[in-house]
Amino acid sequence: MDLIIFGYFATFFSAVSFLPQAIKTIKTRDVSGLSLLTYICLFLASLSWFTYGVVLNDIPLMATNFLTTFFQSIILFLIISERNKADN
Amino acid sequence: MDLIIFGYFATFFSAVSFLPQAIKTIKTRDVSGLSLLTYICLFLASLSWFTYGVVLNDIPLMATNFLTTFFQSIILFLIISERNKADN
Repeated sequence: MDLIIFGYFATFFSAVSFLPQAIKTIKTRDVSGLSLLTYICLFLASLSWFTYGVVLNDIPLMATNFLTTFFQSIILFLIISERNKADN
Repeated sequence: MDLIIFGYFATFFSAVSFLPQAIKTIKTRDVSGLSLLTYICLFLASLSWFTYGVVLNDIPLMATNFLTTFFQSIILFLIISERNKADN
């Protein structure tokens, strides 16, 4: 068994993981249970991984983190905008 | 400037990102806005990255994903247990 399959599994699940959360948050606007600090860290992590992928010219690293950065930026935007609404 | 610094940033933010979410969810038990499917994918991703780290004998990959798997398993457990409570 080629053990590199774990790398493919990991890449696949990482790439798609934030799509259901983004869809759910767009639909429900329910951000009360979401940690803003977690999404700031995740966004910075994905952006750093993406930049690291550009530095290494590593296409899978760039592609995966382009997707996660995109989904996380939607969730982050909704957390901030819904909390601002709630404050006004 | 040594561009590998983006890799260190990425590793650091990835490792700590789920700690605030775990603390928040333990304290508030507010899981209504959290996507179960996202946390299943994240858990499978971290577990696969950890296993890939073991295969490659890559200590940073193992350490980072040991932490994320641990934090995510707490959040996943709380999502499932709080929803089961709500159903009963």
